[in-house]
Amino acid sequence: MKPEGEPSALPKGYRFAGTACGLKARGLDLGVIVSDVPARAAGVFTRNEVQAAPVLLCRDHLLRSSAPNGRGGVRAILVNSGNANCCTGPAGLEGARESARRLARLLGAYPHQILVASTGVIGVPLPFSKIWNHLEDLTGGLSNSEVGIKNFSRAILTTDRFPKVAGTAFRVGGQTCRILGFAKGAGMIHPQMATMLAFFLTDAAVSANGLRQALRQACDASFHRIAVDGDTSTNDSVFLLANGAACPVPHGTGACPRQLATGSPEGREFSFALTEVATTLAKMIVRDGEGATRLVEISVREAASRKAAEAIARKIACSPLVKTALAGADPNWGRILAAAGMAWEKINPNRARIWMAGTKVFDRGRAVPFRERDLHRKLNKPEVSIVLALGMGNSQTTFWTCDLTHEYIRINSSYRT
Amino acid sequence: MKPEGEPSALPKGYRFAGTACGLKARGLDLGVIVSDVPARAAGVFTRNEVQAAPVLLCRDHLLRSSAPNGRGGVRAILVNSGNANCCTGPAGLEGARESARRLARLLGAYPHQILVASTGVIGVPLPFSKIWNHLEDLTGGLSNSEVGIKNFSRAILTTDRFPKVAGTAFRVGGQTCRILGFAKGAGMIHPQMATMLAFFLTDAAVSANGLRQALRQACDASFHRIAVDGDTSTNDSVFLLANGAACPVPHGTGACPRQLATGSPEGREFSFALTEVATTLAKMIVRDGEGATRLVEISVREAASRKAAEAIARKIACSPLVKTALAGADPNWGRILAAAGMAWEKINPNRARIWMAGTKVFDRGRAVPFRERDLHRKLNKPEVSIVLALGMGNSQTTFWTCDLTHEYIRINSSYRT
Repeated sequence: MKPEGEPSALPKGYRFAGTACGLKARGLDLGVIVSDVPARAAGVFTRNEVQAAPVLLCRDHLLRSSAPNGRGGVRAILVNSGNANCCTGPAGLEGARESARRLARLLGAYPHQILVASTGVIGVPLPFSKIWNHLEDLTGGLSNSEVGIKNFSRAILTTDRFPKVAGTAFRVGGQTCRILGFAKGAGMIHPQMATMLAFFLTDAAVSANGLRQALRQACDASFHRIAVDGDTSTNDSVFLLANGAACPVPHGTGACPRQLATGSPEGREFSFALTEVATTLAKMIVRDGEGATRLVEISVREAASRKAAEAIARKIACSPLVKTALAGADPNWGRILAAAGMAWEKINPNRARIWMAGTKVFDRGRAVPFRERDLHRKLNKPEVSIVLALGMGNSQTTFWTCDLTHEYIRINSSYRT
Repeated sequence: MKPEGEPSALPKGYRFAGTACGLKARGLDLGVIVSDVPARAAGVFTRNEVQAAPVLLCRDHLLRSSAPNGRGGVRAILVNSGNANCCTGPAGLEGARESARRLARLLGAYPHQILVASTGVIGVPLPFSKIWNHLEDLTGGLSNSEVGIKNFSRAILTTDRFPKVAGTAFRVGGQTCRILGFAKGAGMIHPQMATMLAFFLTDAAVSANGLRQALRQACDASFHRIAVDGDTSTNDSVFLLANGAACPVPHGTGACPRQLATGSPEGREFSFALTEVATTLAKMIVRDGEGATRLVEISVREAASRKAAEAIARKIACSPLVKTALAGADPNWGRILAAAGMAWEKINPNRARIWMAGTKVFDRGRAVPFRERDLHRKLNKPEVSIVLALGMGNSQTTFWTCDLTHEYIRINSSYRT
């Protein structure tokens, strides 16, 4: 189980485990990441108005663990699959809190130093005893070996076809630091049943602001630019932990004299590395989209503004008509232009050009003739590019989406039953 | 071919025809509606930034035909299926204009008294000669019989499984007036390939303002509240013609002494009748959604505002996860709540209740136990209701959607090829 990217990207001071606690009919469904020392942490959560109990709890825990009172820092992330613990009322919130308490006791940590995440079916009470009964087992199996990483990466999956791990190393001030990231998706941008979760771990020491800003930037450039079906989960959570274990001088949280600050060259280096790992994971999520057979990169160029570029790219990436045409490798570029027009941003077809898989199909108001069979063959690949140049300005963006296939319907028409 | 609703709803002074001109591989693909006298007209068009040539032309023609210069009024609507005449450059616009000119000559009308609409594939030059060569045939076959109505209703279809005609009669000032409506959909709210077109004809005399307002209201309550896949066509057009032929005194356009004005009781009566016909057609469009097996009525109640109710209903109606669950008759109410939360309107699950097919499944933060098999059976019907009561206020709305099935994918993954 080598992470994509640099194989040596295992950050120091973290251990991993995964086990089967019985929430899913089969397979691993409970995982944990532990930092040996309290780590600075940042989080990004779903914007859905309906938020699952773990999201509510983690908002609170992140706030409390960032207080400079000697009890700060995050020690662990506990994740279960098979049940989202959402719309489960006060009992759901209390159960999540109790899970944190119990894990904290096992690790000698404070409860607010534990983050929790859940993914799976909504509205079904989570049988917490299954989790609680397996916490000792779980923490007993913690390791920084490939087995630990593999088990954790599998325990967080639902309908995913493969685990998603990526990592990189970067140098700051003569020192090598590492970032490792895990994700689960299995469906969609902002999926619902297939909640998007991602966890990033670094052994760099990063200032609190630097951490938040780097995570925000990385998410904006990756997870916020992928589309599978446009639904936003009640459970989406992304966490970033920085434990400073690569720092040559021993230190408590935040005490590292060489911590990376916002805007510094080292801070930018870190932000860049994090974005790289996040983008790798985001593309893996799309490639593993429910029922997906291809990854489609959508570039919108020459937009009047960044906002316009993103709105237009999002509309194309989310259009069921574009996505079904891509399933059939059908060069139906009219749907791309029509989808772009739905973003309510100014568009002039007489200035626009479209390329599909490198072939120009539309040029300033007119169709460009192409050989149907050739282009069909070019589109019938695991990775396909679409470029829309608008001729309205200088802004651009890139989104990733997948095709919409029969398999998506099959998976989602009987998820519960 | 009896229209749904009142069978005697044929308004006076209109004739109909449909023929096959060869734009589609088979079946009727060219239709016309003619008003014996110039009719007051109003139009509602797609909000897509990319607008097809017929839309551009009709905006101009509606403006010019409403001028009080003795050349006002609309005499005919010419519709072709099989080609959308969109993204076809200046040649596409000129071709549409020439079609209007040629039909006008045959009818003894001014070119700007002709409205045109097209639906079908985007970006392929329309072979106009096929239309032009058949205009004489077409107008030669004009009639106000059931055959004429049937042929027109069929000529405007693309992937629709059945023609959509509805009508009603209403009395104003002791006089019976009638409204007849045609629609094509075959896919989606705001479909793209399967453009939504609708044409309403009345023999009432209505003031210009009254006409525009009634059409706007009718569209808001019907076509703007249906969802099949959330894509907005480049060609969507709705026209309303009022020729005053039911008026007992002979008159030119707008000269009827008893024309219905905005806000008058008769005006409201007309508006009500038009909304009724439009709603019937809108529901037919959803029932005939591409691949749809059921019509789903989504009621959002107790919202904080009308805007919130509509945004939430729209999110539920457009959610692929909700729609695939409905395809499987799966009572997956968590997806309804999660979709509602994506409208970025304030929601509190602890106040919300959800009913599916009349069965309460969620009550203020908690799942309500139900018999899986019973509810599955209730949901496995051609018409299904979903009610979401938010407990946030007094506003409410109703939307209609359909399920998302394998058949939708099949139709749309190879539309062109």
